[in-house]
Amino acid sequence: MNGEPSRRMAEERDAADPLAGLRDRFVIAEPDLIYLDGNSLGRLPAATPDHLARVVRQEWGTDLVRSWSTWIDWGRRLGDTLAAHVLGARPGEVVVSDSTSVNLYKLAAAALDARPGRRTILVDAEEFPTDRYLLQGLAEQRGLTLRTLPSDLDEGLTVTDVRDALDGDVALVVLSAVSYRSGSLLDLGAVTAAAREAGAYVLWDLSHAAGSVPVELAANGVDLAVGCTYKYLNGGPGAPAFLYVRRELQGGLRQPIQGWFGQRDQFRMGPRYEPAPDVDRFLVGTPPILSLAALEPALAVFAEAGIDRLRAKGMALGELMVDLADAWLTPLGFTLASPRDPRRRGSHVSLAHPDALRISRALISEAGVVGDFRTPDRLRLGPAPLYTRFVDVWDALDRLRDLVARGVHEQLPVASPRVT
Amino acid sequence: MNGEPSRRMAEERDAADPLAGLRDRFVIAEPDLIYLDGNSLGRLPAATPDHLARVVRQEWGTDLVRSWSTWIDWGRRLGDTLAAHVLGARPGEVVVSDSTSVNLYKLAAAALDARPGRRTILVDAEEFPTDRYLLQGLAEQRGLTLRTLPSDLDEGLTVTDVRDALDGDVALVVLSAVSYRSGSLLDLGAVTAAAREAGAYVLWDLSHAAGSVPVELAANGVDLAVGCTYKYLNGGPGAPAFLYVRRELQGGLRQPIQGWFGQRDQFRMGPRYEPAPDVDRFLVGTPPILSLAALEPALAVFAEAGIDRLRAKGMALGELMVDLADAWLTPLGFTLASPRDPRRRGSHVSLAHPDALRISRALISEAGVVGDFRTPDRLRLGPAPLYTRFVDVWDALDRLRDLVARGVHEQLPVASPRVT
Repeated sequence: MNGEPSRRMAEERDAADPLAGLRDRFVIAEPDLIYLDGNSLGRLPAATPDHLARVVRQEWGTDLVRSWSTWIDWGRRLGDTLAAHVLGARPGEVVVSDSTSVNLYKLAAAALDARPGRRTILVDAEEFPTDRYLLQGLAEQRGLTLRTLPSDLDEGLTVTDVRDALDGDVALVVLSAVSYRSGSLLDLGAVTAAAREAGAYVLWDLSHAAGSVPVELAANGVDLAVGCTYKYLNGGPGAPAFLYVRRELQGGLRQPIQGWFGQRDQFRMGPRYEPAPDVDRFLVGTPPILSLAALEPALAVFAEAGIDRLRAKGMALGELMVDLADAWLTPLGFTLASPRDPRRRGSHVSLAHPDALRISRALISEAGVVGDFRTPDRLRLGPAPLYTRFVDVWDALDRLRDLVARGVHEQLPVASPRVT
Repeated sequence: MNGEPSRRMAEERDAADPLAGLRDRFVIAEPDLIYLDGNSLGRLPAATPDHLARVVRQEWGTDLVRSWSTWIDWGRRLGDTLAAHVLGARPGEVVVSDSTSVNLYKLAAAALDARPGRRTILVDAEEFPTDRYLLQGLAEQRGLTLRTLPSDLDEGLTVTDVRDALDGDVALVVLSAVSYRSGSLLDLGAVTAAAREAGAYVLWDLSHAAGSVPVELAANGVDLAVGCTYKYLNGGPGAPAFLYVRRELQGGLRQPIQGWFGQRDQFRMGPRYEPAPDVDRFLVGTPPILSLAALEPALAVFAEAGIDRLRAKGMALGELMVDLADAWLTPLGFTLASPRDPRRRGSHVSLAHPDALRISRALISEAGVVGDFRTPDRLRLGPAPLYTRFVDVWDALDRLRDLVARGVHEQLPVASPRVT
């Protein structure tokens, strides 16, 4: 763009934003705090406290164990809501269950069992740690090779990178649709098609994609996916994760953790495990109902927002951030550590700086801007489009340049990375 | 005892009950409802709604991602509370994490890996379904034999039954301390010692024991245990489960689901998985914080109640129930389906009746008494000692005899078992 964007321009963007009204659906407890970490923990939906209180007082406190007649289906019902309004999947293809890590373990193991003879698992070398660790464990347990795909820290993988790495020995490829660090975005359809041609399954981690970019699992022919619900989906801290298995594959895949929620005719409690005929076979144990309850109001907003409008706004917020970073932060030693092309980027932007860890801390404590740090030297800023305004981006980067220009962060002790 | 207990006698027992005041710590929303299913879903502690609302509004809504600096330790901290006041374990031996099923899978796999060469898993033939299904899966995946121990449906296994089944090929024994159906209680110390002598691990399922009987994991030399927190521990529907690993074993065991919460120095996000040196290595993914939050006030009451006093009251409630069943229900076609000796029984009692399924339903809908049905023909009644009065037991059995004597249940359609 020409010249640096003014705050007035940001205000005008907000005034014209068709999603602006949705900010009121969230609790904004500290109006002066700029929250750019919805890609780590989404904000509290305004409807959640009362909904949760009703579930606690009425369904648990009063109706007690009788409520299981409705709770029993929640994982499935919330999965169908996600399928319809967030993931572009068909009914009966998604369930909410366990953590992302446990779901990834289940589906990765199921996929490996379905590709006997093939000995290689491919993963992005820069994949989110839990995915790499889980696959390392599965590979060691099965005597397979875990091959990492070298990946540019800023630009991420391309479809060509993945295609070139595929061969007849690859059983499974695990990739994030949106990279947790750089925000780089992969083409789900093209990668899935390339892998299918090579006879491999792709298991997508959608944690940073779900609710921020359209993933269109059905249209893209995706086979397997998992993802979390506490980032852009606003399900609350550690909210249960989802898993997706393409309908046509469900009957042929078996997951390794054979719990009673995956059993056909669960309450007959029969002598032997027989997997449910459908997506329920990927469930395991009794689900955490209070955490599931918080997902209900959180997901309700997505039908109204529309994932395409969220994507458009997310791209615009990111572009504003990149433009301001170019103008204000490059002179202060920052470099863009995300793809510059907004079509190649999810809804968060990373900036590299040698002192990023201290800057991220000072930004929170001294400037009221919450982003986070990621190794080795990244400041990650995620303007979640449901509740972030253009002026928030403008103000956040204004505060950031001021803080770094004044060297405020240099007064903080050098420390180790920890939870944000 | 001599003669059938009168309601007056039950009232006198309540008046003398040192735990009677603890009933006020729970929400009793419908005073006329007699709730004898705390062994399935414990009642709502009175302190839970406000505590949970504060976590939602303040910690999530206001403090947002910054709260992870405290949330990150909750699984460990709640584990230490359980260790001290419920399980008789040492600090650093218990964590709250995942579901009981997932925890059982993790610890069973870890134990099997630690006993290479041994080819047999032993399980009670009447073990809770999810445990049997999980072990069936592990055995099939590893080419091991899952051997079931024939078990009396009413009396459960004895130490001798287990000892006689042990041989040099047994790697792992999975048993419930208290059987989910009959309530039969096993001697944890004697079974653990017998298995250790035979070179096998015992993995205890404490779901129906934790909070109702003293399990004294340290004193009994127990190696491995899992259990749920939504029964006698009142953590709420599907509350996260616990796992216990004896301190001396932790460094030598590795579990198969290698997620980032089990990683040493988690937020360095290093290239390879290195398990944490302690009990944290048995964690996997991001825990469901709202469900964990509900456990905090639920566990607080146990320090005050004392597990020995709860056990004493649980035995007394069970004895009253058995005495009344003998007097009133045997003539109506019921038989006791639990051990008669209260020292061999946990805190619930099962009664067999050919029409138990319809009786359990009618008891809820027509008599305001909540128990539950278990296959094949069991009515299960669990008077949780924290909040159940002696008069509740008296009134419940009085309503039950009246209902069956009048044949009320016979007007209900015959149906399939389902969730209660």
